[in-house]
Amino acid sequence: GRFVRLQTVTLIPGDGIGPEISVAVMKIFEAAKVPIQWEERNVTAIQGPGGRWMIPPDCKESMDRTLIGLKGPLKTPIAAGHPSMNLLLRKTFDLYANVRPCVSIEGYKTPYTDVDLVTIRENTEGEYSGIEHIIVDGVVQSIKLITEDASRRIAEYAFEYARNNQRNSVTAVHKANIMRMSDGLFLRKCREVAENFKDIKFTEMYLDTVCLNMVQDPTQFDVLVMPNLYGDILSDLCAGLIGGLGVTPSGNIGANGVAIFESVHGTAPDIAGLDMANPTALLLSAVMMLRHMGMHDYGKKIETACFDTIRDKKVLTGDLGGKSKCSEFTEEICRRVRDMD
Amino acid sequence: GRFVRLQTVTLIPGDGIGPEISVAVMKIFEAAKVPIQWEERNVTAIQGPGGRWMIPPDCKESMDRTLIGLKGPLKTPIAAGHPSMNLLLRKTFDLYANVRPCVSIEGYKTPYTDVDLVTIRENTEGEYSGIEHIIVDGVVQSIKLITEDASRRIAEYAFEYARNNQRNSVTAVHKANIMRMSDGLFLRKCREVAENFKDIKFTEMYLDTVCLNMVQDPTQFDVLVMPNLYGDILSDLCAGLIGGLGVTPSGNIGANGVAIFESVHGTAPDIAGLDMANPTALLLSAVMMLRHMGMHDYGKKIETACFDTIRDKKVLTGDLGGKSKCSEFTEEICRRVRDMD
Ligand SMILES: CC(C)[C@H](C(=O)O)[C@@H](O)C(=O)O
Ligand SMILES: CC(C)[C@H](C(=O)O)[C@@H](O)C(=O)O
Repeated sequence: GRFVRLQTVTLIPGDGIGPEISVAVMKIFEAAKVPIQWEERNVTAIQGPGGRWMIPPDCKESMDRTLIGLKGPLKTPIAAGHPSMNLLLRKTFDLYANVRPCVSIEGYKTPYTDVDLVTIRENTEGEYSGIEHIIVDGVVQSIKLITEDASRRIAEYAFEYARNNQRNSVTAVHKANIMRMSDGLFLRKCREVAENFKDIKFTEMYLDTVCLNMVQDPTQFDVLVMPNLYGDILSDLCAGLIGGLGVTPSGNIGANGVAIFESVHGTAPDIAGLDMANPTALLLSAVMMLRHMGMHDYGKKIETACFDTIRDKKVLTGDLGGKSKCSEFTEEICRRVRDMD
Repeated sequence: GRFVRLQTVTLIPGDGIGPEISVAVMKIFEAAKVPIQWEERNVTAIQGPGGRWMIPPDCKESMDRTLIGLKGPLKTPIAAGHPSMNLLLRKTFDLYANVRPCVSIEGYKTPYTDVDLVTIRENTEGEYSGIEHIIVDGVVQSIKLITEDASRRIAEYAFEYARNNQRNSVTAVHKANIMRMSDGLFLRKCREVAENFKDIKFTEMYLDTVCLNMVQDPTQFDVLVMPNLYGDILSDLCAGLIGGLGVTPSGNIGANGVAIFESVHGTAPDIAGLDMANPTALLLSAVMMLRHMGMHDYGKKIETACFDTIRDKKVLTGDLGGKSKCSEFTEEICRRVRDMD
C-alpha cells in the first residue's frame, strides 16, 4: 500500500452529548476515508500558578502542534470567578474570528427559505473585555474595549473571506450613532479595509436595523462583520432562522492558521448517553474544518450525505422531527457517503 | 351644551412625513370625538448657555404642563457632537421606560402569527451613558453604566405593567454570564422585585438565547425587560416579526406620570408631502397614549377601526400592500370610527 502522511486534528469531545456526537463524526469521517487522525483531549479548566485559569497543558500542547481542533459542547462552570471554557479557549489561542455560515437546509422547514449568509464576529475584545468596576455602591460599569488592530484584523478577515468564498458583499454592523468612539473606530477600520476590496460591495447598518431587516428578509444579507457582543446576538438570531443551534456550524479562526471548529449548542445533559442527540452541528463544523484544511472534496461529500439524509426525512433524530437514534442517523449518513464512491 | 374640561396633549409633529401623519391622527381623534386638545410644538435642538444642547423652551414648557406628548419622527442631526433628538427628549424628561407592544395584526401577513408580547427597555443608562475615552492611540473604551436605582425602577415598571395589563410573565434579558457585574446587578434587581409579584411568573434568559427563541417561536414570550441596548435591538427585532416600524407603537414613560408616545420609524424624506405615508404607527402610539390617560373606550374604538381597515384590505397605503393615499386610509378609519357611534 501507499504511505499516506495523515494530518492530525485535536478532538475535544466535550461534556454531555459531546462524546456521542463526536463518535458520530468520527464514524462518518471513517466512512468517507478522510485522511486525518484524531488526537482526543479533555478540557476542564485548571488553575495554574497564581490561581490563573488555564486549559489543561496536554490539550494546549496538542493544539499548538496540530493547529486544528474540533470541539463538542463544554459545560458552563457554575463556580464564581470560573471562566467560561469557550471564552478561555478563544483567548488561549487568540481565535479572533468567529465564523458562522447560516444556510437554509432543504427539507427542514422553518419560516424562512433561501437564507445564505455568514456572520463574522470579532472574538477577542469589545463587551467581552472582562473589565468591570463598582464605582460606588449601586453603580457599576463594564468597559467595552475596541482597538484599531483588532478591528482592522476582523475587517480584513471578513473581506478576505468574502473574496475566497465567492460572496459579493460585506455589511458592517454597528451602533456608532450611540457609541461614537468605540463603534466609530470599528466602523472606520471597516471602511478603510473596504477600500482595498473594490470587488466586494461594502455597506454599513445599525444593529437594530439589521435585526429588523433580518427577520423580515434575511436573503438581503451576505457576509456580516461586527464587534463581539453583536456577533453573539446576530449569530444566534440567524441560527434560529435556519433551524437552531442543532444544525449550525461554527469556526473560530486565529492567526497563523490555528482554528477550532465547534458546535455551539449546549451539552443537553437530559439526553446525554441515550443515543438521541443530533450530531449535525458538529458534523457541519467538521465539514467547515475540512474546507479550512483544503480538503474540499471530502467536505462536499460528507455535507451532501448529511443534507440528503435530512431532505429525505426517513432517518432523522427527534429534534429534526424524526424517531431515529443518533447512531441510526449516523449510519444513514455513512451509507450515503460510501455509496458515493 | 355641557362644558367639558379638555385635557391638553403636546403634539410634536416632527420632520419628513411627521406633519402629515400627525394630521391623520388629529382627524381620526376628531372623528372619534376624543376630548383632548392639541398643543403643537416643534422640536429642533438648540444650544443653551455653555453650548449645552437642549430642546426648545416652549416645547419643554408645554410638556412640563401637559405631561403627555405625542411625537412623530425627528430627523437625526448630522452635525458632529449634535445629540440625537430622541435621546435628548428621553433625557430631558427622564423617560426611563420604553414600552413597545408587538401584537400580530390580523390580515397583515408576516412569517409569524399570534405574536403578543411587550418589550420594556431601560431608557436612561447602560450602553447609552455617552461616556467614552481614548485610552491610547487606537484603543478606545465605551462605558456601560448600570445602577441599582435604574435597574430596580425598570424592573418594578415591568412587573406593574404585567399586572395592570393582565399579562402572566416577565422575562429578564441579560448577558450576566459575560458582564457579571453590570448585567449581574440588573438581574439581581429583577429577581428582588419579582419577589414582590408572586402572581407574575419570572424567568431570566440570555439575550442571544432570546434572539434565537424569538425567531423560532415568539409566542413563548410575554413581557420582556432589559437594559438599554438590548431593548434597542429586541424591540426592533420584534417589530420586524409583526410587520415593521410602520405598524409598531411605542411609549416612553417617565416618573410622575410624564410620557411621550411616538412612532419609531424614520422621517421617510423621499415620500414626505406626497400623501403616501402610513400613519398606523403614530395612530397606535396615540391609542397607547389614550390608555395611559385612562381613556380606554376611545382607545379601543380607534384601534378597532384601524385594525378593521387593515384586515379589510380595501383601503391601504403602499407599504401595507395597497394603493391608497394617506388621506384615503385616514378617511376610511374616520368613517369606521363614526359608524361605531
Ligand atoms: C457560552 C457563552 C460565553 C458564549 C458567548 O456569549 O459568546 C456563547 O453564547 C457563544 O456564542 O459562543
Ligand atoms: C435613533 C436612535 C438613537 C434610537 C436608539 O438607538 O435608541 C432608535 O434606534 C430607537 O430605538 O429609538
